[in-house]
Amino acid sequence: MLVTLSTDFGAASPYVAAMKGVLLGVNRDARLLDLSHSLPPQNIRHAAYFLAQAVPYFPDNTLHVCVVDPGVGSERAILYAEAGSQRLLAPDNGCLTEVLKVLGGPTQIRRLTEQKFWRKSISSTFHGRDIFAPAAGHLSHGLNPAELGPEVTDMVQLELPQPRRGESWLEGEVAFVDDFGNLISNVPVEMLPSKFEVTVGDQNIRHYVRSYAEAKPGELIALISSDGHLEIALVNGNAAHKLRADSGTAVTVRTEPTKQPLSRKGKTTKTRKKKE
Amino acid sequence: MLVTLSTDFGAASPYVAAMKGVLLGVNRDARLLDLSHSLPPQNIRHAAYFLAQAVPYFPDNTLHVCVVDPGVGSERAILYAEAGSQRLLAPDNGCLTEVLKVLGGPTQIRRLTEQKFWRKSISSTFHGRDIFAPAAGHLSHGLNPAELGPEVTDMVQLELPQPRRGESWLEGEVAFVDDFGNLISNVPVEMLPSKFEVTVGDQNIRHYVRSYAEAKPGELIALISSDGHLEIALVNGNAAHKLRADSGTAVTVRTEPTKQPLSRKGKTTKTRKKKE
Amino acid sequence: MLVTLSTDFGAASPYVAAMKGVLLGVNRDARLLDLSHSLPPQNIRHAAYFLAQAVPYFPDNTLHVCVVDPGVGSERAILYAEAGSQRLLAPDNGCLTEVLKVLGGPTQIRRLTEQKFWRKSISSTFHGRDIFAPAAGHLSHGLNPAELGPEVTDMVQLELPQPRRGESWLEGEVAFVDDFGNLISNVPVEMLPSKFEVTVGDQNIRHYVRSYAEAKPGELIALISSDGHLEIALVNGNAAHKLRADSGTAVTVRTEPTKQPLSRKGKTTKTRKKKE
Repeated sequence: MLVTLSTDFGAASPYVAAMKGVLLGVNRDARLLDLSHSLPPQNIRHAAYFLAQAVPYFPDNTLHVCVVDPGVGSERAILYAEAGSQRLLAPDNGCLTEVLKVLGGPTQIRRLTEQKFWRKSISSTFHGRDIFAPAAGHLSHGLNPAELGPEVTDMVQLELPQPRRGESWLEGEVAFVDDFGNLISNVPVEMLPSKFEVTVGDQNIRHYVRSYAEAKPGELIALISSDGHLEIALVNGNAAHKLRADSGTAVTVRTEPTKQPLSRKGKTTKTRKKKE
Repeated sequence: MLVTLSTDFGAASPYVAAMKGVLLGVNRDARLLDLSHSLPPQNIRHAAYFLAQAVPYFPDNTLHVCVVDPGVGSERAILYAEAGSQRLLAPDNGCLTEVLKVLGGPTQIRRLTEQKFWRKSISSTFHGRDIFAPAAGHLSHGLNPAELGPEVTDMVQLELPQPRRGESWLEGEVAFVDDFGNLISNVPVEMLPSKFEVTVGDQNIRHYVRSYAEAKPGELIALISSDGHLEIALVNGNAAHKLRADSGTAVTVRTEPTKQPLSRKGKTTKTRKKKE
Repeated sequence: MLVTLSTDFGAASPYVAAMKGVLLGVNRDARLLDLSHSLPPQNIRHAAYFLAQAVPYFPDNTLHVCVVDPGVGSERAILYAEAGSQRLLAPDNGCLTEVLKVLGGPTQIRRLTEQKFWRKSISSTFHGRDIFAPAAGHLSHGLNPAELGPEVTDMVQLELPQPRRGESWLEGEVAFVDDFGNLISNVPVEMLPSKFEVTVGDQNIRHYVRSYAEAKPGELIALISSDGHLEIALVNGNAAHKLRADSGTAVTVRTEPTKQPLSRKGKTTKTRKKKE
C-alpha cells in the first residue's frame, strides 16, 4: 500500500529517517512516498492547506501520514480518518479540516488508543516515530482500522478566515505562499468581478492575466491559481518578498478601478497586516 | 517503469505532491524517484545542466519528467524525447538541449497534443499536474509515445557560452554552482595547459590539485570536476560565497603564471561579471 | 533490497541523481530511500549522530549508504560494515563510530578494494557516483560482501566529548541541533539530578517539562529528547537562534538552583563556545 509522509521535521534531522525505519520495520513492503518534510514548523494552517491541495489527487486507499504536531506529548488525540477513498493519520489539531471538506466529509474517524500497534516505549516528544509510524505500518499491512481505537465524531476544527464582500470591494487575505513566492489568496474565482484591481500592501495590481508568460519579467500580476483562487505573482520573481506579504496579509479587490492619484490611493489602502 | 521527477517547485509547496498523486492515479505501479525539486526557479540553464549530469546514468527506458517551465500556459510546446535509451518529458524551452547532446542526439521528438492523456481541466499555471503528470503516468503504463502527438524536428535550443582561447589564456565562465559552493566552469580538461593559474573575480588561484583532501581547509584550489571541467573550490568551505561568484562569472586561465605583483594583477583581471 | 541514501550533496545539484542512476543501472530493482541529502557539508560529527539516530530503526538487512566525505580522492578507505543486522557503506572517517556502538559493535568490516564493482573511470572528487553507488547496486543485488575487499579490524574512530561531572554540576555540550532549532545535548537522562537548572550561554533555563505543550509559546524549556538526552527548546520557536547556540556550545546543569541575582549569574556562567 502507498503511504505518503508529510512533516515539518526538516531536511537535515534524523527524525524522518527514524519514522521511515520504524514504518518499514512493521511492513517492509510499504511503498513510501515523501510529500514534504519542509512544512513550516508547527504551522497547522499551512499543513491544512497542503493536505487539501495534495491528498485528493492520489489513487484510492492511499494512506497519508501528516505529522505537524505542536501538541505532541499532550492529551491531544491522534486520528485516523477516511474520506473520499483516501485515508489519513494526523494529530487532532485542525490540520485535517480542509482536506476532509475537499474530500466530501469524513466517512470514519477514529482515535488511536490501542497501544499494541505502537512502539513499546513512547517518547513524549516524538510520536511520529513511536505512534504514527508503527500504526501506519500496520495499516499499510492490512490492519482493520477499527482495531486502532474507537470511532469519534468530534474533532478540532480549523476556522479559516473567509473573504468579506462590500458594495464594490472584496477583502480577503493570503492563504498560502508557495516556494516561488506566489501569493495564493482565499478569494475564489467565482467571487471575482469581471473587471477589478487588487491591492496588497501599498501596491495596486491592475494587470490581470491568464498565465505568467503573458506579462514581462519583473511585473506584478493577478491571475487565477491552479486551485481556482485569486493569485498575485511577480513574473520570474518572488511576490512575497517584493510585497513583504505572508500568509494572512490582506488582499483587497475593487470592482471599479479608482481614479484617484496613486499617492492618495496608497494611503487609503494600507491594509497589509503585520506578519504574525 | 522508473519515472524520475525534477522540478523547481520547492520543498514546502503541495505542487510536487499533486503531480505524484495524479501520476500514480493513472499508473499506481509507477516507480517514482525524486531527483530534485529545488532547481532554481525558472532557471532553464540550471535545469539543462542538471539533466545533462543526471539522466545519462540511469538504466535504459527510464522516463525523466522535468518541469522548469516559466512559459506555462503560453503556446510553448511540451515535448517527449528519446535519446540513448532514455526518455524525457519537458517543456520546449531549451532545458533538453544539453542532455540530448550528451545522449548522442534525439532519436524521436514529439509534441504533446493528444488531450485524452491529460487531465480534463487544464489550469494555465500548473501543467505539471494537468499535462506532464498524467502523460507520464500513461507512458509509464506502456502507452506508445506515438499516441501523445506528432513528431517534430525543431525545438528551442539553449545556446551556452563557449570558452574563448587566446595566445596564452582561456576565458570561460562558471557553468554551475553546486550546493557546496564549488564552481564548475565550462572549460573542459582537454583545453587546459599543463601549467596554469586561474583568476575568478580579483582572486588568483594557483594551487592545482587532484582532490580536495590535497589542500588545507580554507584554501582556494583548482581541480578537475567530476564531469571533466575546471573546478574552483574552497576546501571545506563555499567558494561561491568567498568569491561572490555565480553562474556566468568569468573564469580566466593563464598558461604562464604572470610575474606581476598581486595588486597590479588584481586590476588587470577584474573580469567578474555582475550577477544577472 | 532496501538501500537508504544519506549525503551532504544538497538539494539542487545533480550528484544525488547521478548516484541513484548508477545504482539503479547496476540493480534496477533496488528500493531506494532518501534519508537526507542536506547533512551539513563535510560535517562528520553530524553524519555520525544522524546515522546513530536513524539506522537502528530499519528492518534487518537494509543497506545504508552514507557519503559525507571530505577525504574523497585521498587514501582514506571506503568501508562496508555489518552490525546488528544492518549493513553500511561509508568513508572511513569516523561517521560510523556512533552507529556501530548503538548497534552493538560491528560483526564484519571490509575495505573496498575490488575495482570490478566500481565504475570503469574513477573521478577523484565523486566516489559517491563512481564507487559507493555501483558497490551498493551490487550488494543490493546479492553480492557477497566478501567479494568487495579484505576484512579490516581497524577504522577511524570519532571521539565525542563526554559530559564532565562536578560536585553539584555537570558540564556537557550541544551534540546536535535539529531543524526546529532544538538543542540536543550529550547529557543522558540518567545523569540528571531530580532537581536542576540548565545554563546555555547567558540564559538560565529552569522550566523542566515533559513535552513542548506543557509550556507557553516563546518559553525556553528543558526536557528529555526522543533519544534520551537533556534537550533545550523554545516552544514554537528556534532555541538555537535565540541562544546563538550550535553543536559544541556548552550546556551546564546545576543540581541546586543558585540563589544569586541573574546579573551575577550571567557573568559566572559565560561558557558558550564560539561557533567553530
